Amino acid sequence: RHKLYEVYTAAQSWLVLALIGMAIGAIAAVLNISTEWLADLKTGYCSTGFYLNEDFCCWGTEGDHCPAWQSWTGFGLLNYFVYVGFAAGFAALAAFLVKTYAPYAAGSGISEIKCIVAGFVMQGFLGPWTLLLKSIGLPLAIASGLSVGKEGPSVHYAVCAGHVIASLFGRYRNSKSKMREIYSACTAAGVAVAFGSPIGGVLFSLEEITSNFQMKTMWRSYFCALVATGVLAAFNPFRTGQLVMFQVKYDRDWHFFEIFFFSIIGVFGGMYGIFVSKWNLRVQSFRKRYLGKYAVKEATLLASLTALICYSNEFLRLDMTAAMENLFHECENGWEKYHDLCQPDRQGLTMLLSLLAACVIRTFLVIISYGCKVPAGIFVPSMAVGATFGRLIGNIVQYWQQARPDSIIFSQCVVDQPCITPGAYAFLGAAAALSGITNIFVTVVVIMFELTGALTYILPTMIVVGITKAISDRFGKGGIADQMIWFNGFPFIDNKEEHAFNAPVSKAMQKNAVYFTYDSITLKEVETLLESNPFQGYPVVESSKEDPPMLVGYIAKEEIVRLIAKFKALNRDIHSSELGQVQCYFGEIPESARQSSQAFIDMRPSINTCPLTVAPLAPLENVTSIFLQMGPKVVLVVKEGRLVGLISRKDVLKYQFITERQHNHHTRLQTQ
Amino acid sequence: RHKLYEVYTAAQSWLVLALIGMAIGAIAAVLNISTEWLADLKTGYCSTGFYLNEDFCCWGTEGDHCPAWQSWTGFGLLNYFVYVGFAAGFAALAAFLVKTYAPYAAGSGISEIKCIVAGFVMQGFLGPWTLLLKSIGLPLAIASGLSVGKEGPSVHYAVCAGHVIASLFGRYRNSKSKMREIYSACTAAGVAVAFGSPIGGVLFSLEEITSNFQMKTMWRSYFCALVATGVLAAFNPFRTGQLVMFQVKYDRDWHFFEIFFFSIIGVFGGMYGIFVSKWNLRVQSFRKRYLGKYAVKEATLLASLTALICYSNEFLRLDMTAAMENLFHECENGWEKYHDLCQPDRQGLTMLLSLLAACVIRTFLVIISYGCKVPAGIFVPSMAVGATFGRLIGNIVQYWQQARPDSIIFSQCVVDQPCITPGAYAFLGAAAALSGITNIFVTVVVIMFELTGALTYILPTMIVVGITKAISDRFGKGGIADQMIWFNGFPFIDNKEEHAFNAPVSKAMQKNAVYFTYDSITLKEVETLLESNPFQGYPVVESSKEDPPMLVGYIAKEEIVRLIAKFKALNRDIHSSELGQVQCYFGEIPESARQSSQAFIDMRPSINTCPLTVAPLAPLENVTSIFLQMGPKVVLVVKEGRLVGLISRKDVLKYQFITERQHNHHTRLQTQ
Repeated sequence: RHKLYEVYTAAQSWLVLALIGMAIGAIAAVLNISTEWLADLKTGYCSTGFYLNEDFCCWGTEGDHCPAWQSWTGFGLLNYFVYVGFAAGFAALAAFLVKTYAPYAAGSGISEIKCIVAGFVMQGFLGPWTLLLKSIGLPLAIASGLSVGKEGPSVHYAVCAGHVIASLFGRYRNSKSKMREIYSACTAAGVAVAFGSPIGGVLFSLEEITSNFQMKTMWRSYFCALVATGVLAAFNPFRTGQLVMFQVKYDRDWHFFEIFFFSIIGVFGGMYGIFVSKWNLRVQSFRKRYLGKYAVKEATLLASLTALICYSNEFLRLDMTAAMENLFHECENGWEKYHDLCQPDRQGLTMLLSLLAACVIRTFLVIISYGCKVPAGIFVPSMAVGATFGRLIGNIVQYWQQARPDSIIFSQCVVDQPCITPGAYAFLGAAAALSGITNIFVTVVVIMFELTGALTYILPTMIVVGITKAISDRFGKGGIADQMIWFNGFPFIDNKEEHAFNAPVSKAMQKNAVYFTYDSITLKEVETLLESNPFQGYPVVESSKEDPPMLVGYIAKEEIVRLIAKFKALNRDIHSSELGQVQCYFGEIPESARQSSQAFIDMRPSINTCPLTVAPLAPLENVTSIFLQMGPKVVLVVKEGRLVGLISRKDVLKYQFITERQHNHHTRLQTQ
Repeated sequence: RHKLYEVYTAAQSWLVLALIGMAIGAIAAVLNISTEWLADLKTGYCSTGFYLNEDFCCWGTEGDHCPAWQSWTGFGLLNYFVYVGFAAGFAALAAFLVKTYAPYAAGSGISEIKCIVAGFVMQGFLGPWTLLLKSIGLPLAIASGLSVGKEGPSVHYAVCAGHVIASLFGRYRNSKSKMREIYSACTAAGVAVAFGSPIGGVLFSLEEITSNFQMKTMWRSYFCALVATGVLAAFNPFRTGQLVMFQVKYDRDWHFFEIFFFSIIGVFGGMYGIFVSKWNLRVQSFRKRYLGKYAVKEATLLASLTALICYSNEFLRLDMTAAMENLFHECENGWEKYHDLCQPDRQGLTMLLSLLAACVIRTFLVIISYGCKVPAGIFVPSMAVGATFGRLIGNIVQYWQQARPDSIIFSQCVVDQPCITPGAYAFLGAAAALSGITNIFVTVVVIMFELTGALTYILPTMIVVGITKAISDRFGKGGIADQMIWFNGFPFIDNKEEHAFNAPVSKAMQKNAVYFTYDSITLKEVETLLESNPFQGYPVVESSKEDPPMLVGYIAKEEIVRLIAKFKALNRDIHSSELGQVQCYFGEIPESARQSSQAFIDMRPSINTCPLTVAPLAPLENVTSIFLQMGPKVVLVVKEGRLVGLISRKDVLKYQFITERQHNHHTRLQTQ
């Protein structure tokens, strides 16, 4: 029977993952369809069925003419105002819903999930309300045309879905570490459905979210991402048979001399990341201080502004995914869907200026939009900026090569054949900007390939992303998710940074730890102590008479609470007035107590007698690496078997914060 | 100046990595070219230049006719014997060179590298001789037609190259942990150049080699793999402009009903892995016992046998890469290079039987060939077996669909259009067999895409590999590399297994640790102690009079050796007979010693006063996770500040081994 139970529990965990994956895939499919419908609603409606979007409405009709799709009015200008009105309305509705029902549904959510996976507790952040509101708000936010993406929010609703479903099973509800494994897997599934990139999702969960890498987690992420993507593919929301929104194929190979131009794109990616995250944080700080009460108005205004500005530029007018598809395209075989971009004779200054304007305006919009109080990601907008910049460079190089085909730089080109592929520059630009803003690298390379299948460009992509990484490492302060964590003051130790404190543990530890002793203590006293000192656990020592006292072990708060609840459940006959006087023992139970008829609580079975400890003179770096690698809540500081203090993640961060401020202060004094 | 030095050291590490990457890329290019030349030499020679292989010899000639390429003789049968003779000769030469000059160059090397990266020391395994002989032996072994691949050996020569180059720099020579980072990066570069798959290489290093995942390592692997692949691409050894040997493109998408057939391939992959690793280990055990002295004869015989058997089967006659390229190919556009495979009317039983025979024979050859004393990997042969099996399934399904197009199973197919793509089945088969034998998963998916670019098949590939993984986990004993580690008895703790010992540390620890005390000790005594107890480090305690003694710290052997060498270098005037009487202090130096003119050695600066410790009653699992996460050589067992023992990786493995044997013995007794 034991074996059967084992098989059941093993199967259960896969079952739960499969359920979660299916839910995520289904949500993604519904969101994709409703986003498209809402976005098309801005331009008109389908006369054969209001629930159809433009593509489905015009299904099977030849050419551009589609009689079933009706504009809202007969006048162009009026249509434009209707368009802006819808955009503002969607944004207002999204902001209102989020503000009223689930404030946590605002923004991207990746920073918070990083902290939650690392062990931070945030009540309600993953609840069903957040799931519902994020799922309703996201299509509205995207359809409003704001410069926001769906990838961050996808991760958030995926983790919410995982949390809600896994909570139905006692095994997960009661184990935070098991729950965290589920979260990692959901992150992978969230990215997988957002980009149609299952392997990219697995790597994202690995590179960005999980601080402690484990094979088991990786395999769970793989499974969950696979199921979610499979379900999404079965729904086939784009009716293309493909998971992804755009697929490109570059027939021409790249040339070695192009590496120089690729490098420019890489440098741009790094600088874009640094610039945008810096200014976005300033905008957020402004928003936090002055705009807290005006979330709905702010979103409405932003959406109207975006719609007004973007209409004037041919590259901004399209939604970001469609714009990227056009920018990525190789100019060949009479592909003329997107006018000027592919006609060398018209590749004059006008178009380059138009691309430049699109790049600058979109950057500005990203800075002011990301962080406004609707569900909003920054991945796709950044990619769009990068693609615009890349295409700009690509077109300049192409123009140059066509003007001077016999220049020594272009000697690798075959005469009278197209040599430069500006679409590939756009592709590389998207990769660079994405890795610049997120500071993830291997994942970006994989996602770009899964998005487009442009495998011939693997070396250029790696080079560009590598250069971006070098720039970010040298001049940047980490990805925007990490900077948001810092900005919001979450207790999170980044495993990518190298910590050099040059200080012993004793400098950062809490000296007056609250502990239990071997002396008997009443239930009332225990409960008072738990309430007045809400820590996650307490050391147990022999006696408080010695200082420092001899350490015996460590007991988690939830264990104490559990034992008390169990005792109360078993001893319902004890009058509540007497209940407070029940004795609790953390050490040897005296013979007298055993003999007496009085009930008591024996806490000893729940005491961990071998907690993680460090010496007070050990370097603080050791403690951070224990936190990162072993993941405890707290580490006891012990000298010769005696408890001299304890140290938590927060203490390390507090110490880091204080020393950095002192350091800055000191430097400022010096330079004055 | 301090800043300048920092910049220099930071730049140095990238410089070293770039140098290593370039070296690996260059070696790979030379090996690719020479392998092709040697392989072609079996069939003839180029009359316009003996140093040209068939492709270059016939460069620019139209059609199949190539006058410059001469067969060895005019008679077909005689040519066949020349062919077999060359094959046997190459194998004999490879085995002879390896046996005589560098025994470590035999086999794959991945198992050993896993152990080395985990901290195991193996003198000479990564030396320049091994590098040279592996590089000479590998083309010979591949060209001999043995069923061996070049991927494992590529990893080995890459790590050798890294070791040799990094050893030129003092910073790496003196730091084993820095050296291990280099090894991880080289592993990535080795896989990258072997498969033309840089991202696959990075993931391989992560999933298979590195036990302790760190962002820094990942980024170094990325850089090294990028440089190596870039150099290889610049050499362009296949003159195709592509990095990889075959590129396929599947125009047709897959259908949901095919998932059932894909599952069969996945199950095959898992079973193949289990079967082959089991029997291969038996063959290796036989080889170790009986064939140790006959390495050259064995290799010669194997190569002759392989050449003789394989000639009879159309799929085995080609080399494995070419065979796979044909098997992967989609049958369309009059592609008839490979006769029967694409002509439905001739797709009779004959061809299916031929495929089946190829699959069975190749499996047999893999079992007996892998592990023979030439440089030999198992990746490509396994992929070839898998591809053959996959194509077999694919052709059966295609045949069935064409015979009964109106069956309900095939209702998703469009009438009168090709529906099944047997080439994709071969592709999936290769992925399944590769992941079955190696037990790596995410990496295999990425490698398969970088090899072929068949992105539309990402979901089927993930499904197939997932099923293979499930089978392997349930019934298998881990990848062949891990099983070889176990077979060879290397001290390696696998972080994929979950360790449940249910025992405290005290059960497995060494109780009588050799330590130094505060009492003064002569240099001679220290040296004798180091020689007679060759550990990697020693605890330092206050006094041996107490039992257990009070722990002070831990000192590494290399630190003691370094201090002694420094002392000797500074005090050349001391006569060698007096040298042995020099006092060494691990604790307080008495005033008398300070005052006297006698020189002494102060060991205290090198004592680590905060070594990693555990309590004797802590669960053994804690220690394994400390080994895995923090990577120390040894952990001290301390109770109330006193040293009661110490525990190394070997002790954990020894304990695991003994308990497993007892358990097996016990189970056997019960069943009797």
